[in-house]
Amino acid sequence: MEKTSLLYEGKAKKVYSTLDPDLVVVEYKDSLTAFNAQKKGSFENKGRINLEITCLLFQELSKKQIQTHFVKRLSATELLVKKLEIVPLEVVVRNRLAGSTAKKLGFQEGHQIKSPLVEFYYKNDALEDPFVSDDQILMMGIATEAEIETIKAMALRINQVLKDTFAKIQIDLVDFKVELGRLKGGELILADEISPDCARLWDQKTQEKLDKDRFRRDLGKVEESYHEVLKRLEGINEK
Amino acid sequence: MEKTSLLYEGKAKKVYSTLDPDLVVVEYKDSLTAFNAQKKGSFENKGRINLEITCLLFQELSKKQIQTHFVKRLSATELLVKKLEIVPLEVVVRNRLAGSTAKKLGFQEGHQIKSPLVEFYYKNDALEDPFVSDDQILMMGIATEAEIETIKAMALRINQVLKDTFAKIQIDLVDFKVELGRLKGGELILADEISPDCARLWDQKTQEKLDKDRFRRDLGKVEESYHEVLKRLEGINEK
Repeated sequence: MEKTSLLYEGKAKKVYSTLDPDLVVVEYKDSLTAFNAQKKGSFENKGRINLEITCLLFQELSKKQIQTHFVKRLSATELLVKKLEIVPLEVVVRNRLAGSTAKKLGFQEGHQIKSPLVEFYYKNDALEDPFVSDDQILMMGIATEAEIETIKAMALRINQVLKDTFAKIQIDLVDFKVELGRLKGGELILADEISPDCARLWDQKTQEKLDKDRFRRDLGKVEESYHEVLKRLEGINEK
Repeated sequence: MEKTSLLYEGKAKKVYSTLDPDLVVVEYKDSLTAFNAQKKGSFENKGRINLEITCLLFQELSKKQIQTHFVKRLSATELLVKKLEIVPLEVVVRNRLAGSTAKKLGFQEGHQIKSPLVEFYYKNDALEDPFVSDDQILMMGIATEAEIETIKAMALRINQVLKDTFAKIQIDLVDFKVELGRLKGGELILADEISPDCARLWDQKTQEKLDKDRFRRDLGKVEESYHEVLKRLEGINEK
């Protein structure tokens, strides 16, 4: 499938149109950003590693009847995916509190919560992706009440599959971010990626971080951690 | 009713116990604070004016069967009120977007919205009263799902009464903050105060601000504006 023109360039991905109006190509870049792109970095093969991790996780999700935008892998860093109308929300699911929410609500990093928490952030770079409530989402017309309920239910199902998958490879899924999009008929499916760029993944035994917090907080071994996550995921079907 | 001991001193009020365990005395102070008390001020009679405005508005609410903690006025700056277990939420109702939410979501100051928006802020000075979602409230055990629904419904009813009341005196109720508390049996009733300290009140004709934003934003005529609101409210029953 040939790329026709660049539709959008984000912090970690490029999106191209194709000759088929219902399909686009997503190219995974090697760049890493944090704090609304105020901190920038990159490492070789990051795009490829994140793409491979995403594909493996999408596979696990699709085994559990969770639809994703994935169609086909085109190259080491390119996926052919369904074209969606992206809902401008970062949908975050937390199993433990860490990062901004832990700080905001006064909890210790890693605080265990009884049931998973779903949060929404309004995707808007100029506004720095503010945290929003369901009522603010409705007020802005970003999604309908029924869609918000669907998104929450899907986020929790996705969380269950991912949590189980990571548990098999001795990783605690602390939290993660997903994005959803609407197919032409309005049906919501999972878009974007799932990778150490947008999830907190802690080694179950050592509680060592294996995700973008290593970059965000200058902990070193960024590349090695992404590799480690991929290596463990690749071994999952051999068990 | 005699004050026995000081239970709590807030930014604008003091609360005293009484010999009756179900009643407390609230004393309205003359101090004004903004930006989580980083900005401080005061003017003579502010306590008295806010108390009088609150009493007049509580009266309008009680005519519409909305229960408040008000029992009796004791002096120019003291009210006898029911002792409640305060729900640690600042419940904000917005008819137009202004202040922090307008800025956060990228709307112009005064943006009209189709239906009123209810927002919750977690009352915690150390955390600077963060904006929270319903799911975060549930996670923290601040209120139950049923209580959140009740609080929202009450906030909207209170809004309707206040909006109508202010409309009669040519004031646009842009937004306001209330606090609710639980009686011993768990029933939620309106607590705290309703005054220009915690509401945005704009003159209907000139759109001039008649509230704490005059202090917050150094617009001058703070005292005069509070007086103006009281004067108009006092005239309401003469019409």
